[in-house]
Amino acid sequence: MARVITFLSDYGHGDDFVGVCHGVIARIAPDVRVIDITHGIPRHGVVQAAVTLRNALHFMPSGVHLAVVDPEVGGQRRAVALQLADDRLLVGPDNGLLALAAKDGGGVREAVDVVRSPFRLEPVSATFQGRDLFAPVAARLAAGAPLGEAGDPLDPDELHPLALPTPTLAAAEVVAHVLSVDRFGNATLNVSHAQLVDSRLRMGGALDVEVGGWSRPARFARTFADVEPGELLLYEDASRTLALAVNRGSAAEHLSLAIGGELRLRPA
Amino acid sequence: MARVITFLSDYGHGDDFVGVCHGVIARIAPDVRVIDITHGIPRHGVVQAAVTLRNALHFMPSGVHLAVVDPEVGGQRRAVALQLADDRLLVGPDNGLLALAAKDGGGVREAVDVVRSPFRLEPVSATFQGRDLFAPVAARLAAGAPLGEAGDPLDPDELHPLALPTPTLAAAEVVAHVLSVDRFGNATLNVSHAQLVDSRLRMGGALDVEVGGWSRPARFARTFADVEPGELLLYEDASRTLALAVNRGSAAEHLSLAIGGELRLRPA
Amino acid sequence: MARVITFLSDYGHGDDFVGVCHGVIARIAPDVRVIDITHGIPRHGVVQAAVTLRNALHFMPSGVHLAVVDPEVGGQRRAVALQLADDRLLVGPDNGLLALAAKDGGGVREAVDVVRSPFRLEPVSATFQGRDLFAPVAARLAAGAPLGEAGDPLDPDELHPLALPTPTLAAAEVVAHVLSVDRFGNATLNVSHAQLVDSRLRMGGALDVEVGGWSRPARFARTFADVEPGELLLYEDASRTLALAVNRGSAAEHLSLAIGGELRLRPA
Repeated sequence: MARVITFLSDYGHGDDFVGVCHGVIARIAPDVRVIDITHGIPRHGVVQAAVTLRNALHFMPSGVHLAVVDPEVGGQRRAVALQLADDRLLVGPDNGLLALAAKDGGGVREAVDVVRSPFRLEPVSATFQGRDLFAPVAARLAAGAPLGEAGDPLDPDELHPLALPTPTLAAAEVVAHVLSVDRFGNATLNVSHAQLVDSRLRMGGALDVEVGGWSRPARFARTFADVEPGELLLYEDASRTLALAVNRGSAAEHLSLAIGGELRLRPA
Repeated sequence: MARVITFLSDYGHGDDFVGVCHGVIARIAPDVRVIDITHGIPRHGVVQAAVTLRNALHFMPSGVHLAVVDPEVGGQRRAVALQLADDRLLVGPDNGLLALAAKDGGGVREAVDVVRSPFRLEPVSATFQGRDLFAPVAARLAAGAPLGEAGDPLDPDELHPLALPTPTLAAAEVVAHVLSVDRFGNATLNVSHAQLVDSRLRMGGALDVEVGGWSRPARFARTFADVEPGELLLYEDASRTLALAVNRGSAAEHLSLAIGGELRLRPA
Repeated sequence: MARVITFLSDYGHGDDFVGVCHGVIARIAPDVRVIDITHGIPRHGVVQAAVTLRNALHFMPSGVHLAVVDPEVGGQRRAVALQLADDRLLVGPDNGLLALAAKDGGGVREAVDVVRSPFRLEPVSATFQGRDLFAPVAARLAAGAPLGEAGDPLDPDELHPLALPTPTLAAAEVVAHVLSVDRFGNATLNVSHAQLVDSRLRMGGALDVEVGGWSRPARFARTFADVEPGELLLYEDASRTLALAVNRGSAAEHLSLAIGGELRLRPA
């Protein structure tokens, strides 16, 4: 029986959305602990949320993993609860948000559509299904309810996939995309260090970063402190993907980076 | 014996105000769980806080409900602890903040003035009574202390009322006011769907929204996805009151709405 | 055996840094409670963090006190775990962040360098040592591991001190510095009320506050409500140090105050 719920959303902390979901969970499952992964996902940022959820779950106890970034709330999208091969349970809208975490957990063993779940709070509002649908389903599962009772069986092959942009990995030029930007302005790219094997980009080496036709010099370094304050660096971040940063500054501001944006990395 | 404290304030998360109150509670009542409803109430926003507290309590376990939005801290306002007819305990300044939640809980059964409570931390600072007065009183009550020991008896009829603006509900025009604005720019009004019974505003219908002499077209819809991106909609929100939103946008920005502001809704 | 971890950082709530550290702690020490003091310290604000940590610990249960504000992460700075004379355990980078709290706890009884701690998560990333080093060390200590097993012994005299600016306390003029600014724009100074004993600055008195060559009138008052809205006041704040505020406004904006900035207080 899972005793932990982790919770990720784009609800922010300015309103009572997160607190109300905590209340709903505490009423249904008073002994379950809730760990907030983050609620600072940019509004409707399904891709950034999917990447964040996947990376964070490696560091979370196994349990029920509730995620709500739901631009189509009240529309026709499905809502799902999934059991993965590694036993984790995921709960959220079926819009790609859960896809990367599901793959990292060995794939989906069992899926149910919870849109008409008996665990819902009635009446279900059209605009706050975190409260009325997703939190109660997560709480009942964490309290020990079988997945099969949470909704209607669903073929895992019918789940919404997540299409990420594909990098181009030539020796002379890597075309990458921004997957997420953190509060320090550090930008995670869709390229791992391992994928650079045929590139001429090398740790310690100089490179050019081109965004929107403008090119800036950078260095491929291990950490911020390896370059001067104000300098741009390419580094392997804590999730083992490549990222851009400015030591004691903001790469996102320096390069006017936006999530999903394309950039080119070339050996200098 | 209550085992849960819920906590709402305008303290924000930028400073240690909330954390210090959690510490104070944990020292007095180590086994009591604290659920943060929100600390993102706009500074001194007593009306928005009162509405948020009332709506959130429907989804919270019964316990001690601590609320601190206190523009007159250190002045002459009373500080109170209240037991409601439904057994919930409310703790906070007596400035109207608790009035709507108290009414929804069946009214106040017993009230005490806690300004000179024996549960205070001495010396009580003039500026941070969340730490020195309200949190310790809430913690002692949650740990099982009787309400009568928390302060001096007070006639519930002497509690500060909360005066909300009154809507005008004619068939051809509804004059409403903004009670709160959330992080998505959705604006809650002081009119419920049920109050529209005599109005010609109807679900699915077109209407005009006038603010400050400017008029914009809108639609009365069930949810965001029922209108096009960028379109203005009137809908019944998750608290069952009417609200204005822009699908994938911000109604507050679109209409320059401010809390307490007046607007007019007319069938188009 | 400590059962509480308090946690302070400059991670903010926009990303999953805080949540991931909570996950790491929950996996190692599932029964330990984490109290977040604040994660809103300005980026790299070691001095503001050190002052906040010292003041907050007076209100926290004794336990393990994790603090991460770490501008030199991945560089040559030491990482430490300290046992204080009052039995509290502090964990964080050795950059002065822990110095004021250590002094208030009676000084350091035992210190270890945890950079190569056996409690680390491998591989340790160069950029997120909160997750890979500090959180696991704090969790193992909270779960009962002896300090000596967390790292290599270190002479407490070798710990990084924290140099705060020194005020000048003449009768006719006090030269003070801003230690921190809160979300309301209230500015804490490096002067206590007791230090004013020789000054003509007195409770209730009028004074001038000079910043950057500009002088404004203020009053020494007990609390905000003792002056008119918009008026500047000098008061003893909840940490018993002098602070500047504007009733229902922001002293930081009114005076263009920055952390570390110098100002002069003179009897009017």
